[in-house]
Amino acid sequence: MAPLELRIVALPLEGEIQEGADLAGLVLAAAADAGEALRDEDVLLVTQKAVSKAEGRLVRLADVQPSALARQFAADYDKDPSHVEVVLRESRRIVKMDRGVLVTETHHGFVCANAGVDASNVAGGGTVSLLPVDSDRSATELREALRSAAGVAPAVIITDTFGRVWRNGLTNVAIGVAGMAPLQSFAGQQDLFGYELRVTVMAVADELAGAAELVMGKTDGVPFALVRGFPYETRDGTARELVRDAALDLFR
Amino acid sequence: MAPLELRIVALPLEGEIQEGADLAGLVLAAAADAGEALRDEDVLLVTQKAVSKAEGRLVRLADVQPSALARQFAADYDKDPSHVEVVLRESRRIVKMDRGVLVTETHHGFVCANAGVDASNVAGGGTVSLLPVDSDRSATELREALRSAAGVAPAVIITDTFGRVWRNGLTNVAIGVAGMAPLQSFAGQQDLFGYELRVTVMAVADELAGAAELVMGKTDGVPFALVRGFPYETRDGTARELVRDAALDLFR
Repeated sequence: MAPLELRIVALPLEGEIQEGADLAGLVLAAAADAGEALRDEDVLLVTQKAVSKAEGRLVRLADVQPSALARQFAADYDKDPSHVEVVLRESRRIVKMDRGVLVTETHHGFVCANAGVDASNVAGGGTVSLLPVDSDRSATELREALRSAAGVAPAVIITDTFGRVWRNGLTNVAIGVAGMAPLQSFAGQQDLFGYELRVTVMAVADELAGAAELVMGKTDGVPFALVRGFPYETRDGTARELVRDAALDLFR
Repeated sequence: MAPLELRIVALPLEGEIQEGADLAGLVLAAAADAGEALRDEDVLLVTQKAVSKAEGRLVRLADVQPSALARQFAADYDKDPSHVEVVLRESRRIVKMDRGVLVTETHHGFVCANAGVDASNVAGGGTVSLLPVDSDRSATELREALRSAAGVAPAVIITDTFGRVWRNGLTNVAIGVAGMAPLQSFAGQQDLFGYELRVTVMAVADELAGAAELVMGKTDGVPFALVRGFPYETRDGTARELVRDAALDLFR
């Protein structure tokens, strides 16, 4: 049964998240500042950048020795060779490498531009952020830390901004999930007229990530958001369930 | 500036939408039943199925003469040949035709399974629904009808459920837009640390469509939803802006 109403609430945070930061403490403080108390039935959305900063997943480009491949691509397209090198290291497969764009498959299996390596919103020139090593584990750890600190265990989704095939513009998607099923299946349920809906599996974690992006914005210091009212399926779900098996991907 | 909070409200409707129905009247009635009065600053989300039914975009399969191509594919994969024929007629290009799956480009330019032809939630066995002929025009007409009937002109998004490359599960996306920019550009805006965000164009219409899906569900008669609090850019936007030019699509 779908809900009648959802609330999506931005949880802004003053200042920058430092390496080693207590992310659960920051979430609870941001929620308190927004006048909200997290509940078990909420979904907490956290940006990749917030998690990566807290986990120290930052690389100073001056410390990176670019390979010949990175240097060539950078020279052809006026890129920073060290930045290109970091992207290559964060990738297990190159999907496209053309016209200055690098689309790769990350070690997690996500396909995205630049392997999720990002220079924006990172303090200090010449520093880039990497995706968390295991973004599902990061989500689980944050959920457990919230349980320890405040006795509350909402579902947690770590979000990042990805491009899509065939459609312009980026959307936020889930790259880490804890405490909920990322896919909600309507297979076998009957619709209004008694037909069987054969295969309708909704990627609700991605829809929640996109919904949260609408209040998080890109520039205004909102690393967290909560969605209240969505009756998610509680279980040990992962964002890896959202990665389509290449052998089954008829869209490729 | 991103908002601090959004509300996403389901607008259920009793009964089935008939061909020729006054969609604006139904929207206003559903909103009133939900205790909501639409505002100019709202975004109204409407399912493709609701629009297609009101526009009579239904085909009785018994009236369709399948081609040899449709008969062959149907025989190979245990499909209804008339259903396959309708999909082919709704397509201008076949992207994949394999293992019983037909991914095509519709006449609008959308790439999706079965050209958006759908048998679920359509009354009467052996009937399928087609996408609106011009879903941007449908959105504009609904917006103008709301303005005429009630003096209110929210942004309007017609939604459908599409699969994605590389990721499991479906999400709702925008197939018709009126009264808002479907893409919101952060290009050139400076982030927290003064760097330029070079290319960040968010597909907010798709994120709004996905957010609304969370309250619309698949089976429970919610053809409409409203999103309140999202500061969209008011202009004559279209869903066609969301269709990526194949020549520029490095992800393909």
